[in-house]
Amino acid sequence: MQIDIFLYERMTALDAIGPMDVLARLPGAEVTFVGVEAGPVRTETNLGLVADVGIADAPSPDILLVPGGFGQSDLMDHGPLLDWLRACHEQTTWTTSVCTGSLLLAAAGILEGKKATSHWLALDQLPNYGAIPTEERVVFDGKVVTAAGVSSGIDMGLELLARIAGDDLAQIVQLGIEYDPAPPFDAGSPRKAPAAAVEFLRSNSRFVLEGR
Amino acid sequence: MQIDIFLYERMTALDAIGPMDVLARLPGAEVTFVGVEAGPVRTETNLGLVADVGIADAPSPDILLVPGGFGQSDLMDHGPLLDWLRACHEQTTWTTSVCTGSLLLAAAGILEGKKATSHWLALDQLPNYGAIPTEERVVFDGKVVTAAGVSSGIDMGLELLARIAGDDLAQIVQLGIEYDPAPPFDAGSPRKAPAAAVEFLRSNSRFVLEGR
Repeated sequence: MQIDIFLYERMTALDAIGPMDVLARLPGAEVTFVGVEAGPVRTETNLGLVADVGIADAPSPDILLVPGGFGQSDLMDHGPLLDWLRACHEQTTWTTSVCTGSLLLAAAGILEGKKATSHWLALDQLPNYGAIPTEERVVFDGKVVTAAGVSSGIDMGLELLARIAGDDLAQIVQLGIEYDPAPPFDAGSPRKAPAAAVEFLRSNSRFVLEGR
Repeated sequence: MQIDIFLYERMTALDAIGPMDVLARLPGAEVTFVGVEAGPVRTETNLGLVADVGIADAPSPDILLVPGGFGQSDLMDHGPLLDWLRACHEQTTWTTSVCTGSLLLAAAGILEGKKATSHWLALDQLPNYGAIPTEERVVFDGKVVTAAGVSSGIDMGLELLARIAGDDLAQIVQLGIEYDPAPPFDAGSPRKAPAAAVEFLRSNSRFVLEGR
């Protein structure tokens, strides 16, 4: 099972790392970190992540994972990247995204006519690409799997792992990463958070999208 | 607020990235990625993370974060590292760990007489260093904060951010990373998971600690 994880400048690290630390535990998984070009990129928080190969040399993936982040907007017209996403998608068993990574899939034409999600602040952009915005944390439409904002990639990884390898292994991996979440507040979605928090982020979306 | 995140070979990426993508959103946060030496390290899943400075050149942190992972066991006798952890701890406002990162704090003598946690498979090692194992997801004892396995670092990050900057900001950050967890199973702790999953990991701890 070949897993290609796309890395790029000013991405959100957790978007990629959450599902990575789940899916990499699939027996026989081979994980490859792919950049536009090989070499380190810097996340929103200035962490260097190493892309081991560029898109021109990346192995054809069984699972493609595209994270989101502030830098996503710089890539929406990147022809070679969109070509690569389309070429991957023709061969994948699963094409996946977290957060605003779905907008890159959308820009490549992959979400046309498909139910999909994204970060809640970006959901309204999906119809511009023919996608059907869906307010669920993890959305399956055929082989396309999109997850909501940032931390939702962990849930996506476990759901996908269960479909691929069965519930028993998914529960072992969940126990292995001790994923028994206990957030100190019930503020993780705009339907639950205090109105002031929702309003703050609607008015200051760069706060979350840009890191700080 | 200077945050030093320690990176090392065969660490678990999510241990560091979960709390990083929370705490980096503190206003005025400066995040520095510190290795034993400067340069890239490889996580359990072979992702390259770039340590921008070595411990000899690291800034004195207000918050120190030590992740866990399979490579932790190789560092338990690393004199210069343990010296650095102790020197940091003398200056910090908060000294924190995720997963088996607490064993490195313990080896440095920082957990003596303190309540602490770790990955559930490693809890029984804490008394060897005078720590008091505590079966909670996030354990505060004075300025020392330890979190349980892997994914618990996200909860720790939010709890710590609330103590530092208040509940309002913590809820904004929780909403920003859309942390409204919805795991597909209730299997994230040994008290909840199927007995077979617990037994599998007790007999195959390398499965989780080593990645795959």
